[in-house]
Amino acid sequence: MGEEDALRFLADRFKATQKEVLTGIGDDSAVLELRDKACLVASTDTLVEGVHFRLETQTPRQLGKKAVCVAISDIGAMGAVPRYLLCSLGCRSTDSMEFIEGLSQGVEDGCREFEICLVGGNLSESQTVFINMTALGEVSGDNTVLRSGAAEGDDIYVTGTLGDSALGLKILSGDSGIGGGEGFVSRHLEPTPRLAVGRMVAERGIASSMIDVSDGLFRDLEKLTSEHGLGAEVSLADLPLSPGFLSISGRLSEDAYRLAVSGGEDYELLFTSSAEKRAAAEEVSRLSGIAISKIGSVTGGGKIKFFDEGEEEVFYDTGGFEHFC
Amino acid sequence: MGEEDALRFLADRFKATQKEVLTGIGDDSAVLELRDKACLVASTDTLVEGVHFRLETQTPRQLGKKAVCVAISDIGAMGAVPRYLLCSLGCRSTDSMEFIEGLSQGVEDGCREFEICLVGGNLSESQTVFINMTALGEVSGDNTVLRSGAAEGDDIYVTGTLGDSALGLKILSGDSGIGGGEGFVSRHLEPTPRLAVGRMVAERGIASSMIDVSDGLFRDLEKLTSEHGLGAEVSLADLPLSPGFLSISGRLSEDAYRLAVSGGEDYELLFTSSAEKRAAAEEVSRLSGIAISKIGSVTGGGKIKFFDEGEEEVFYDTGGFEHFC
Repeated sequence: MGEEDALRFLADRFKATQKEVLTGIGDDSAVLELRDKACLVASTDTLVEGVHFRLETQTPRQLGKKAVCVAISDIGAMGAVPRYLLCSLGCRSTDSMEFIEGLSQGVEDGCREFEICLVGGNLSESQTVFINMTALGEVSGDNTVLRSGAAEGDDIYVTGTLGDSALGLKILSGDSGIGGGEGFVSRHLEPTPRLAVGRMVAERGIASSMIDVSDGLFRDLEKLTSEHGLGAEVSLADLPLSPGFLSISGRLSEDAYRLAVSGGEDYELLFTSSAEKRAAAEEVSRLSGIAISKIGSVTGGGKIKFFDEGEEEVFYDTGGFEHFC
Repeated sequence: MGEEDALRFLADRFKATQKEVLTGIGDDSAVLELRDKACLVASTDTLVEGVHFRLETQTPRQLGKKAVCVAISDIGAMGAVPRYLLCSLGCRSTDSMEFIEGLSQGVEDGCREFEICLVGGNLSESQTVFINMTALGEVSGDNTVLRSGAAEGDDIYVTGTLGDSALGLKILSGDSGIGGGEGFVSRHLEPTPRLAVGRMVAERGIASSMIDVSDGLFRDLEKLTSEHGLGAEVSLADLPLSPGFLSISGRLSEDAYRLAVSGGEDYELLFTSSAEKRAAAEEVSRLSGIAISKIGSVTGGGKIKFFDEGEEEVFYDTGGFEHFC
């Protein structure tokens, strides 16, 4: 695979057609128009072989799409709309053109599904395969939801279900032969960024703080609270779990709630909201068709605490989440 | 080194103070204001260990600054002004905190020198060290200079001097013990993006096409011409070479002109311009204090040809440029 050949292939595949893309992939830089008065939102993320993915357990196409979804999830977590992507790929000179083609197909799948445009790319030789994505989006400045706005007494909400991706990773990693676990595996390999919900929550001023759950509920909830000396109380019984999640984790001898709390890579939205916004949050759930579950509340206590159905505190060793798969 | 510790360190170091940075490093995404009617310019580039750099031959601080300079050079080559950076770093978990500190110091040096702001970052474990930089800039859409505007008969100009970086790399790679070569080594390790010249050339409408010389004069000149079936004739005698370049390359038994033509990583600006803009190009050189040399002209011939002082054509095998250092 020659670098020039690969770049030409990519430039052809990702030729921009939108009028806002004044210059797309293939020049020194992309030149882009933003809407009037929109703020630019920018985020960068990398998936690294052996750390965030293994080439043995997923196709290049799945990997390409996942890289897109992970990158734009960060844009969605600000309440913003992702518009553009720049992709830097590192791969061995012995990796085949089919690998790059598969990866590109996955990136294209993601771009098409979420109506975004790849406007810049870069290809380097590297002994470790990595995919870096920089996502650019737009938001009206007033609608931006930061990580830092939570207040004591706020409700804590999470979209969708938790732990599916972590369970899928367990199934992928082991030779468990568990039947019925395919849905969990695909939640891990093909996460769905909650863009529409994030935008609605932001536009309606519902969230006081928001983040996407990538490192696991525990660690991401800490990011929303600990900086201001706040904490949280979460009821395990209120955690949204998929049908079959408890029984399949049990068959894998996994502590299901520990997985749901610390597993990571859910790419659900976690947000805080004052109590008077409850009806508005429920309406967003109804309109978007995505479950939004109230799982606890922000406290002044400085710690994240979990309680079981008997209202006993449950302690998790959540320090060691690894993305390894 | 814990990832959280390192991220906190980076977020503290790169806290934004500009009012246009509504949210800087440390949230899911950065939120940025652009000037009214400015277009966004975006580019991404990666330096990979063993391909673009070796940790034995340069300090982390030099590497950090080089990553900044290489990234913003692509913005300058559009005639745009770089404003923001997002950095994704991959390093081994055994790499020391000093390595990250040194690298950050270099990034900070670059940001301060070129008045740009690091607004996003990401740290991953990786067996191969890499530094990805996405640079964001602004340009008035009318002033953008693309790679694609060259016309037959246009003059070809290059800023500064050619080949210094390639010679520096030769000196770095060998155990030559060549005295007086330090300046060439620092041209390789600490390139200077030609931002001011790029902006002036763009604002005055001088360039019909422009690129920064990263892969070497030959290959980058091809990018300005070959897509439209154009070619170029370049006079070796007109190539701008530093004092001492010919003699030191000779002492290293290198073909000096081959180095200057194919060496790469010059990060000078290469642009084409119609003959009636000659006085304007000279004025930019005078105002900026940077040499701008006319080295040849665009032809309809579809090939890049080099001629020596006796007007004999000289052939170079320029296919194999490697960034390896």
